[in-house]
Amino acid sequence: MSKEVLQERIKVAVDAMGGDFAPKEIVEGVNIAIKEHPELEVKLYGDTEQINKYLVKSDRVEVVHAAEKLDMGEKDPVMAIRRGKELSMVKAFKAVHDKECLGAVTAGPTQGVVVAAHMIVKKLPGMARIALCPTLPLIGGKHRLLLDCGGNVEIRPEHLVQIAHFASSYLKSACGIEKPVVGLINIGSEPGKGREQDRITHQLLSEDPGINFYGNIEPKEMLHSECDILLAEGYQGNLVMKAIEGTAKAVGGVLKEEISKSLWAKIGYVLFMKKTMDKFKKRMSADEVGGSLLFGVDGVIVKAHGSSSAYAFSKGIERCMEAIKSNFIETMRAKLEEENKNE
Amino acid sequence: MSKEVLQERIKVAVDAMGGDFAPKEIVEGVNIAIKEHPELEVKLYGDTEQINKYLVKSDRVEVVHAAEKLDMGEKDPVMAIRRGKELSMVKAFKAVHDKECLGAVTAGPTQGVVVAAHMIVKKLPGMARIALCPTLPLIGGKHRLLLDCGGNVEIRPEHLVQIAHFASSYLKSACGIEKPVVGLINIGSEPGKGREQDRITHQLLSEDPGINFYGNIEPKEMLHSECDILLAEGYQGNLVMKAIEGTAKAVGGVLKEEISKSLWAKIGYVLFMKKTMDKFKKRMSADEVGGSLLFGVDGVIVKAHGSSSAYAFSKGIERCMEAIKSNFIETMRAKLEEENKNE
Repeated sequence: MSKEVLQERIKVAVDAMGGDFAPKEIVEGVNIAIKEHPELEVKLYGDTEQINKYLVKSDRVEVVHAAEKLDMGEKDPVMAIRRGKELSMVKAFKAVHDKECLGAVTAGPTQGVVVAAHMIVKKLPGMARIALCPTLPLIGGKHRLLLDCGGNVEIRPEHLVQIAHFASSYLKSACGIEKPVVGLINIGSEPGKGREQDRITHQLLSEDPGINFYGNIEPKEMLHSECDILLAEGYQGNLVMKAIEGTAKAVGGVLKEEISKSLWAKIGYVLFMKKTMDKFKKRMSADEVGGSLLFGVDGVIVKAHGSSSAYAFSKGIERCMEAIKSNFIETMRAKLEEENKNE
Repeated sequence: MSKEVLQERIKVAVDAMGGDFAPKEIVEGVNIAIKEHPELEVKLYGDTEQINKYLVKSDRVEVVHAAEKLDMGEKDPVMAIRRGKELSMVKAFKAVHDKECLGAVTAGPTQGVVVAAHMIVKKLPGMARIALCPTLPLIGGKHRLLLDCGGNVEIRPEHLVQIAHFASSYLKSACGIEKPVVGLINIGSEPGKGREQDRITHQLLSEDPGINFYGNIEPKEMLHSECDILLAEGYQGNLVMKAIEGTAKAVGGVLKEEISKSLWAKIGYVLFMKKTMDKFKKRMSADEVGGSLLFGVDGVIVKAHGSSSAYAFSKGIERCMEAIKSNFIETMRAKLEEENKNE
C-alpha cells in the first residue's frame, strides 16, 4: 500500500479568485501544496477556464465553477455577499458550512472574508465575536499570535477574554503549548495603564483560571517577550500588525540602501553574506506564515495575504491543514457547550 | 571678536535627574552639547553634589540645586508634581514658564512630563490639547513626525486637527517645509474606514485649507509615504510608535542571529560590512533624533528617551535648540490669536 492511502485525506476549499494575483498565483499555490502533501484534497472555486490554464491536473483537485468574484475594493461587502451566491469565496465557505470541506483558504479582501465567514460559515454556538489572528515572524524561538487584528473595530472586554480562550485552545491543540502565555497589548506595562476598557480587560484576565496571564505588554517588548498570544482590540491590533509589517519592510530597505552605498559592503554581501541575508529576509517575510486564522467560526478559515505569491498561498493551505488536523474547533465547541451548561 | 560672541545665546533648562541613567549620562550629554554649540547656555537642575561629579566646568553651565526627583515608576504624578516644588523637572519647567529659559529637556517619565508641562509651562492660549511628538528614523529622505503619541488617551477630532496645524507650523518654521503633507493613521486607506471619530477627523482635515491632507494612511505604508506628519490619537499613536521601536529592535536581533550562525557571514561582516552595519544601526536608532517634542505648551519641551545615553541626550538638547531658533512657538501663538479673533 502506498503512503497516500494510509493517511487520512484532508479536504480544503480554495477560493481561486481572491487576491491581487488571482487566479494564477492561487492555482500555482495549490499545485505546490498538492505535490507536497499527499493527504491533501482541494476543491477549487472560480472561473473554470482561467483556473485550467494554470492547474496541474490531479485526481485530488476538483474545480467547481463560480461565475463571480468579490472585488478587492468592494464598498459594500455585506450586500455583495448576501446577493452573491455565485461568488467564488461564498461557494468555498459554503463547502465548509456544509462540512464538505473542513477548512477554506482565501486571499480575498479582509473585510469581505470576515463578513462572509459570519454570514456563511457562521459562529460556533456560544461564541460572541470572531477574530482575525495572524502569526508573527519567528523571533526568540517563538511564533506569536496577535489578535484581534480586525474582526471587530470595537469589542467588549468579556468578549476579548473569550477570544483569548479560543487562541489558547488553538495553541494547545495545534502546537502542543500546554499553557500559552497571554499578554494584553497596552501603552504601559503597569496594571492601571490605558483606557477604562483596558483596565477592565486586565482585571478579567487576571482573575480567569483558564488564562495564563502575563499582564500588560507594550508593543516595543512584544516581539521579545515570553508571550505566545498578544491580545488587542481589532482596531489597535490591526494598527500594530501593520506597523510591524511596515517597519520590517522599511528596515530592510534602509539596510539595502546602506549596502549599495559602499563598494566594500557590496563585495562582502555578494561573496560572504548573500545566503545569510536571504535566510534573514525569509524569516521576516509574511509569506512564511501563510496568512491569518479566523477564530470563532465553525470551520477553519485562513485569510492569506492579498498579495500572496504561489509559495505564500501554499503556506496558507498548510496552515489550514495543520489547524484541521489539530481538531481544535471540536475542542472549542465542547468547551463552549460546557460553559453554556454552567450558566 | 570670537565666533561665540557673534551668535545669540540660547538658554536651555535641563532636568539632570530624569531617566534611567541620570545624572551621569544627562550631565555628560550636557558636556557634549556645550562643547559642540558655542551659542548654548544650560541651567542644570538637580542634586548639585552628584552633578558636579560628572560636569565639565563651563561658564555657560549653571547648576541649580533641586533636592528631589520624579520617580520613573511614580503612580500618581499629578499629586507628586503639585506637591513637588523641589523636583528637578518642576524647577526646569518653571524656568521655561518664567521665560528664564526658552526650552527644557528631560528624560523623565512620559506621563510625568506631560502632566508637569500642563501644570507648570501651561498651554498656549487657545490651544485645546497638548501632544507628544517623536520624529521617526530617516527613511526615503524624510524624517516624519508621529503625533499624538501619548499626550491624550482620547481626543476630539477638532482638537486632533488643531494638533495637525501645530505640527505643520513647526515643520514650516524649523525645517523649511512649505506645505507639510499630513496623513491620518487608520486601518484602511479609503475615506470611510475605521471608527466614527476617524471618519469625522478625515472629513475635517479634507475641508481644512490650512492642512495639506494626504488622506488615510495604513501603518504598513507610513514609513515609505510622502507624508511629513502622521496623525493619530494618543493611544493609537503610542502603540504604533512602540511597535516601530520593537520591530526595528527585533529585526536587528534576527539579523545578528543569522550572521552568527554562519562562519562565512561572520567573516564577511568583520572584513567588509562592519562600517555599513554600524551606519545602518545608527540610522535606525532612536538616539539620533534625541527625543520627542511636546506640542501645545508655551515653550519648547523635549522629552528625551528614558534610557538616553549621553550622546542621545545631547541630540535632545540639539532638538530643543533647533525648535527655539525656529521661533515656531511665536508663530503658533500669533495663529491662535488670529483664530480667536475670527471666532
